[in-house]
Amino acid sequence: MQRYFIPAENWAADTVSIFGDDVHHMTRVMRFKEGDKVICNRPDGKAAICVIRTLDPDHISAAIVEWLNETVELPVNVTIAQGLPKGDKIDFVLQKGTELGAAGFIPFQSERSIVVWDKKKTEKKLNRFAKLVKEASEQSHRNKIPVIHPLVNMDGLIRESNNYNMLLFAYEEEAKVTAYQSFAKAVKSLGRNQNVLVCIGPEGGFSANEAETLKANGFSPVRLGPRILRTETASLYVLASISYHLEELGCE
Amino acid sequence: MQRYFIPAENWAADTVSIFGDDVHHMTRVMRFKEGDKVICNRPDGKAAICVIRTLDPDHISAAIVEWLNETVELPVNVTIAQGLPKGDKIDFVLQKGTELGAAGFIPFQSERSIVVWDKKKTEKKLNRFAKLVKEASEQSHRNKIPVIHPLVNMDGLIRESNNYNMLLFAYEEEAKVTAYQSFAKAVKSLGRNQNVLVCIGPEGGFSANEAETLKANGFSPVRLGPRILRTETASLYVLASISYHLEELGCE
Repeated sequence: MQRYFIPAENWAADTVSIFGDDVHHMTRVMRFKEGDKVICNRPDGKAAICVIRTLDPDHISAAIVEWLNETVELPVNVTIAQGLPKGDKIDFVLQKGTELGAAGFIPFQSERSIVVWDKKKTEKKLNRFAKLVKEASEQSHRNKIPVIHPLVNMDGLIRESNNYNMLLFAYEEEAKVTAYQSFAKAVKSLGRNQNVLVCIGPEGGFSANEAETLKANGFSPVRLGPRILRTETASLYVLASISYHLEELGCE
Repeated sequence: MQRYFIPAENWAADTVSIFGDDVHHMTRVMRFKEGDKVICNRPDGKAAICVIRTLDPDHISAAIVEWLNETVELPVNVTIAQGLPKGDKIDFVLQKGTELGAAGFIPFQSERSIVVWDKKKTEKKLNRFAKLVKEASEQSHRNKIPVIHPLVNMDGLIRESNNYNMLLFAYEEEAKVTAYQSFAKAVKSLGRNQNVLVCIGPEGGFSANEAETLKANGFSPVRLGPRILRTETASLYVLASISYHLEELGCE
């Protein structure tokens, strides 16, 4: 069943009001009619089967018929801090990271980031990103939309890190070490609903200076397998592995 | 150090001969000079540090100075059979799958594949793919280049499946089941150097008919976490999870 994320203010006791792009999608793309059913998600993760009652060009009203008792959210909250990569690779990280269950994303301006986002560019991008993660959440049947945090530099990242129970960063130098298991040890030690922040460097990785700063501020370096991953692949490895360990292997 | 995959016939006892695109890359992109060092990989996975002795416009000769005792290959051979997806998503699967350690790829024409590759198209594509996986192997410091198998239909896939120790397919219906662990159980039971074939459907997944055929021929359905993944993300989940389990968690 098609799924839509509806802002909190559009939920009444037994009806949901749908506006904007979702109306376009429901009438023009899906060609829904009165009586058709969709799943509507509330921002708090709750979801309900709703039946469409009225369709106007700018407003659809749907009646809540059944609250769902489902959850497909990861048992831990994984936020990815992504060093700004080149081109549109960040779109890829957001889309795939959302599919794989990320709780949030922090774009950060790293020493080796070649691109620089000015204020205007950042605002425009953040709007586009919000749409991208909403659509990816709907497609992957998520209960929640990941949060996109404001752009930070290293100082901002360190400040933000106080909100997390576990701090990790992917360090290429670690990939070359035969002694491994630091990432797996970290995943094993995770408790339900803990907040994990995983930092990924841009192309070229973290500078030695950045790695020192991260370590000094409580971040542990981890390797993500022995092969060298591109910057846009690293967060996927992290999220797939955490899903595998906690949702498939059942080692929680 | 920059890494190049050199065909078997270009290796002598103590020198390596380099031709074609690699010469262009070494002279024009990397601007190497006499005395510079590179890593050369043999198709069998062995690698050596080599020092450049002579540079001609169409031929570079390098002396083998040290054989490396390294391996970054997955301890099992994972081949991904990918139902032909839309657009250039197959490029993405090949590039990311190579980074994540795939042993090979089988493109297959699935019932719900919207694209159809004719003979001419397939030939052209396979050439491009060979270049793509070679470059991705070099970048991720692989010891081996994944094999790209010819395009098959379901009958061909079933015939090919005789060459593997374990047969799995990602089935969307399984993602909706709360009882899980079939994928993890499979990964746990893998022995070193075993050959695993994992089939991924195109957009829209496998038809019920295809799922029945796969099951009847020894393929086990697995879920890859409870969220619905796009076709191009599924193989990444498989490879990252297998790497995590065998290379990081150390459960081998």
